[in-house]
Formats: sequence, structure tokens, C-alpha cells
Amino acid sequence: MDLDRSPLAAPFPDLPKIAGVTPRVARAGYKDWGRCDLTYVELAENTAVAGLFTRNVCCSSEVELGREQVRGGRARALVVNAGNSNAFTGYRGREAVEQIMAQVAKRLGCDRGEVFVSSTGVIGVPLPLDKARAGVSAALDAPECSWEEAAATIGTTDTFPKGALARAVIGDTTVTLAAIIKGSGMIAPDMATMLGYIFTDAAVEPAFLQDMLSAANERTFSCITVDSDTSTSDTVLAFATGRAGNAPLASPDAPGADAFAAALHDICRQLAHLVVRDGEGARKFIEVAVTGAVSDESARKVGLAIANSPLVKTAIAGEDANWGRVVMAVGKAGEPADRDTLSVGFGGHWVARDGVPLPDYDETPVAEHLRGSEVRIDVDLGLGDGRATVWTCDLTHGYIAINADYRS
Amino acid sequence: MDLDRSPLAAPFPDLPKIAGVTPRVARAGYKDWGRCDLTYVELAENTAVAGLFTRNVCCSSEVELGREQVRGGRARALVVNAGNSNAFTGYRGREAVEQIMAQVAKRLGCDRGEVFVSSTGVIGVPLPLDKARAGVSAALDAPECSWEEAAATIGTTDTFPKGALARAVIGDTTVTLAAIIKGSGMIAPDMATMLGYIFTDAAVEPAFLQDMLSAANERTFSCITVDSDTSTSDTVLAFATGRAGNAPLASPDAPGADAFAAALHDICRQLAHLVVRDGEGARKFIEVAVTGAVSDESARKVGLAIANSPLVKTAIAGEDANWGRVVMAVGKAGEPADRDTLSVGFGGHWVARDGVPLPDYDETPVAEHLRGSEVRIDVDLGLGDGRATVWTCDLTHGYIAINADYRS
Repeated sequence: MDLDRSPLAAPFPDLPKIAGVTPRVARAGYKDWGRCDLTYVELAENTAVAGLFTRNVCCSSEVELGREQVRGGRARALVVNAGNSNAFTGYRGREAVEQIMAQVAKRLGCDRGEVFVSSTGVIGVPLPLDKARAGVSAALDAPECSWEEAAATIGTTDTFPKGALARAVIGDTTVTLAAIIKGSGMIAPDMATMLGYIFTDAAVEPAFLQDMLSAANERTFSCITVDSDTSTSDTVLAFATGRAGNAPLASPDAPGADAFAAALHDICRQLAHLVVRDGEGARKFIEVAVTGAVSDESARKVGLAIANSPLVKTAIAGEDANWGRVVMAVGKAGEPADRDTLSVGFGGHWVARDGVPLPDYDETPVAEHLRGSEVRIDVDLGLGDGRATVWTCDLTHGYIAINADYRS
Repeated sequence: MDLDRSPLAAPFPDLPKIAGVTPRVARAGYKDWGRCDLTYVELAENTAVAGLFTRNVCCSSEVELGREQVRGGRARALVVNAGNSNAFTGYRGREAVEQIMAQVAKRLGCDRGEVFVSSTGVIGVPLPLDKARAGVSAALDAPECSWEEAAATIGTTDTFPKGALARAVIGDTTVTLAAIIKGSGMIAPDMATMLGYIFTDAAVEPAFLQDMLSAANERTFSCITVDSDTSTSDTVLAFATGRAGNAPLASPDAPGADAFAAALHDICRQLAHLVVRDGEGARKFIEVAVTGAVSDESARKVGLAIANSPLVKTAIAGEDANWGRVVMAVGKAGEPADRDTLSVGFGGHWVARDGVPLPDYDETPVAEHLRGSEVRIDVDLGLGDGRATVWTCDLTHGYIAINADYRS
């Protein structure tokens, strides 16, 4: 299937080399794609790792194993297969992952548990052992590739390669974070919902890296949705090689920890937004800003009810300031809300306040805002101080075309 | 907007006159529709009433008042406005409902609380008092109309009028149930999710009528979904005029109570299916049959996760036996499930059993089943005896066209 590049696509950023990180790509031929589909990233010894994994009960062997491996805290390599998720493939799927881990561990002379594997694509077809073996072998011997090549190689229905950059100063050392991500359908919050990889030369203790990654997740990956569907393979991994030479970060009190956490949060938000920008069929990037909820968590749930509502998403696609559908979505969220204190607006213009449409509401600036490709929905519940921002995209004919015609 | 008649439409049944029930229609002109949009149904004195209402927090005044009125147990009239839901309209919306109640009560010489009002259509525009008054006035003087006319008059984006019939024998009396319903978008379970009205000549005590209606709801209206969106106005009312002359039913032990409950359940299921058959953009009617869950309620939640998944619904639209998406939806439901005991099939043909795709799976009968307009998805969780059946429709370009272009 030939997909047009998303109109919301962002150019690939100029990502620098991260000391201790070497990406390579190869072609395993999982699909008839005529392009590389296997990404291999070699990591310096003693690289710290942290991870987020799908909570989908029917997760892949890659996710099951990865969840265990992260507990070890150290990584030497990452392998990403694109075109086959290897999920719901029973013991044969697990065998394929273990083969890849063994093959790479043997070459690097490391523990198998330090080799992380992810796969994305069709569900229910075991990853073919021979193609995986040949692909990994080719990747191990391939020259170093660019970040953009790696980002393109992990993609499936993605229409553009996605990367992000952040920096932080720890003591007198500037550390760099570079990241790539794939994802555009089967995207729902509640966890990391895609394949995303963050690489930094900072020195960070694994447990603290995990704490910071989990905290960033709450306000980034857990706040996006394309279609309310949660993949069986979703994974975000953060790797810290320590090659920048800073004093290793081990706790929130360490000098520079705040700066690094802020940079990690920033790069996670960039990645999350990029996934929404490549949401299947997306023509508009939608920010849902909820205030006045009884708690932040309640605000997030209300925001997601709005962001997951097909009627709200189609209204935005139609550039229709249909605030009644926003009211409906608030009301069905199952969270505390009071019709008589509820206010709804678009792009900073209130349309209804305290449960009543504004009598002097001027449709012109709202209509203009909705014609743009970046739309904001404002909701004030008028109950408390809870707030959250959630991101999604509109629901268009493109989503139907991609998913009714494409056998993923 | 001109909508094509749903390809899943059912012909309107031959509904008989129900003793003590007189429907009439008129044109209030809430929209530029050039057709009647106000339905008035007069009920014999002492008619028992029971009701189900949306749990959407941002419900309309009609729903708020109706919930109170049902406690009185008696009804003399029903007024349904189409084209304006009068939801989220504050005190002005409530004023309009109270005006209609007073106007009808005065004519009938009954209590205002015995006049039930529903409205459906655009959210956020107060029902115009003058149009409502003139419309009600015309309806009060209109001749009796057919059930089909009444069913057509309560519709909005519906593409065909929907009615259902059931009969039961109580003692030596045959009682009749006739019902009409509207709904095709903003349809989600968890309550009555549309406007539906059931009329019977049976004599039933209000409290027992409510018990039976609530029980029927659990396995009918609460088991359908079109788009996971829950309307602010949903209402189902059952009216029992008692004119059939049976010994009044007051408890499950009464002779004939089982037969009547079965007929009520049957007519509710018919109505629920009709709404799905008119689901916005629907081309296929989908039954999701879940077995082997830890409980019936758990099975229902898993069924709804499947039925609400845009990826499953688009796969069915594309006639793709994409059982991987079914697995994904099972896994995200948040209910107990075990990948290694999970089986998935279509139309009675298993595609995967106990967590592994069947090696000898023959795609031919499954593909043939999916080409039909009635599709069944079978899921066996392999954990317990819990089971549920849920109904939905596919997600097509038609849904996007209706909702991105139509300002409801």
C-alpha cells in the first residue's frame, strides 16, 4: 500500500552521533517491501536501560522478555524487526526472539539478557527463523547508518521517519538525547504505545532512569491516542551509555537530575506528538486542554474521552465547531462533571460557559481556527484544580482507507 | 443531508393498534426538514410506565425530568421532538419541556408528571418555545397516524423507520407489544442508548414493569454499540395500558409473567438490532459472541472492547479475517484473559485455538462468511463459563461522510 506522507509530517531533525551508540540496518525480507526492515543498534558496555511496555494482556514474546530484561538494568544491543510483530505466535514466536538474542550475544560476547528485541507488523505469523538469522547476520556486518535511516527502517504504516533531540547540562557536562519512534495506528494511551527508542550519552543509574522514564510517560505517551486501540507490541526503551563522562545520576537530588529529567520529558513529548502527527489518515493535530477537574488524573480521563470520541474527531475533520459533541464526550467519561459549571471552547475562544452557550458568541475566529491544521479544544469543568493535556488527530476517510483495505 | 437507506434496513413490520394508545404527528419545524418532526402519543388513563435513561452526566432536562416522572409509575402522554435535543441548554431548555408538559396536561386534565417528553437532534440550542407550542397544539388535534409514520417522525439521521412486535399469553389473554425506536449514531452501551418506546395493552404494575425492562436492557440495549459515543438524551420508555384485561402482573411469580418478560426481552432485542442495522455508514451487521470468560459481565466487557475497536470494525468493512486485531482488542479490554487459552474464529470457523493459529486453517469458508452482510466473530477465552453476545456494525467511509459533513 502506498501511503501519502502525512500533511502534519515534521522534517527529520539533525541528530548527532551519540557516543557509545552505533545503528545499522539490513534487509531481512519479512515483507515484500524492497527496503531495509531490520534495525540493529550496538551499545557501549555498561549501558543503562529502562523501559515501558504495553499492558495489553495478549502481548508479544518480545514484550514479555523485554520486561524481564529491563530488570537487569544493562543493555548491549537492540534489534527491531519491521513487518511482523511476532505477537500471538506461541512458542515458535518466542524461539525466534531467543535465537536473535543468542546470535547477537555470541557476536558481542555479552549476556543474552542484554540484547533487546522488538517486532512490529502483522499479528499471528511467527517470525521466520531463517530470515531473522540472515537479517541479523547482515546487520551485524553492515556499516553504521544515519538516524534517519534507522527511523525509516523501524516504520510500518508510518508515512515519515520520526526523530527527536534534547540536551541537558549535568554539572559542567552537556549530555545529548537522540530518539527515534514509529507508530501511527493501534495507538492508545495507558502505557507506552508504539516502538520508541531514546539514546543518550549521559551516565544514569538504571533504576533512576526507569523512574524518570515512567514519570515522563505519564504526561506524554500516556496522553496520546489515535484510535483507542492498544498494540500488543508497544515498547519504549531508553539507553544511557555514560560516555559523556558526567557524574552518574542516581537520584532526583543529584545535581543535573532535574535538567536531565526535563530533557527526557521534552524528548518523550516530541516523540508522542510525532506519532499523533502520523496518525492514520490524520489531517489535523488536536490538543485537548482540560482544566477545572477534581484531579489531574480525572482531567486526563476526560481529555481522553474527548480525544477518543469518533464524533468529536469527525467534527474536527469537518471543521465543525460542534461543541455539543464535546459536551457529550465529557458526560460519558464517567468522571465528576457538572453540566452547569462546564465551559467549552476552541483555540482560546469560549463557545459555552457554565452550561450555557454564549449569547454573543462570534463564530468567525473559531471557524478560522478550525480551518488550520492545529486545533485546540478547551474544556473547563469548573470543579477543581485538576488539569491535563491530551493529544490526538482527526478521524478521516484516510483512516478507513488504510484500515479497511490494508491487511496489517 | 440526503442519506441512502441502510443496506441492512429491515422492512417496517405490520404493527397492530394497541388498545389505549393513539399516536399522532405534526410539524413543529425545528429544522428545515419539510416533514413532521413532533410525535404525540396519547395513553389511556392509568397506563403504567417504566423507563431507562442515559447515564451521560451532561444529560438533557427531558432525561432529568423523565427520571423523576417514572417514579410516579403512571403516564398519559408522550411527546417526542426531532431535530433538536434541547440538551445543554440550561434553564431555557427546561422551560421548554415544562411548557410542553403543562400544555398537554391541561388538554388531558391530567397531572403534568404524567406527560413524558423526549427530544433528539442538535445539542446546545434551546427548543424554541413558540415552535414547540404550535407543534404540540397541531399534534393534539391531528388524526391518529400509523406506527410507521410515528417511527419515521422520531428519526433524525436514521435511514429507515424502525418498529417491532411481540406477543405473550397471560392466563387466557393474548397481550401485544408494539414498539418504535430511533438511533444510528452516538450509540454506546451501558444504558438505554437511543429513543425507544414500547407500548402494550397488558396490565402490569409499574414497579414490576421497571424490573423487567431493566433486566431486558442488560442483554439488549446494553449490548450494542455503533461508535462508543453515549448520547445526552437516550431514553427507552415502556407503557402498559392494561386494556387487554389480563390479571395485572405484579411479580415474577404471577402466571404469565415469564411469558411477558420473554416478549419484552424479545422486542428490546429486536429494537436494539434495528439501531445497529441503521448504524451510521453500516454495511455489515456484526455479532460478537464471547464464551469462556470468568463471568458474564467480563464476557460483555471483552465483547464491547472488540465491538468498539476501530481496527476490528474497519477490518470487517474490508472483509479481512484479521483475527490479530481481535486478539489485540481482547488484550486491551482490561479483563482476565490468557493468550495461551484464547481462541478466535469467524462465522463458526476457528482461525486460532489456544493461542496459536490453526496450521490447517482453511481461509475459503471464512472469506465467504465475511463477504456476507451478517458477520459473526467468535471468541473463546478458555477460562470459565461467562458468556455474552454483543452487536455492532462495521466502520466505513459512510460514517466519516455523515459525521464530518453533517452538523448534528
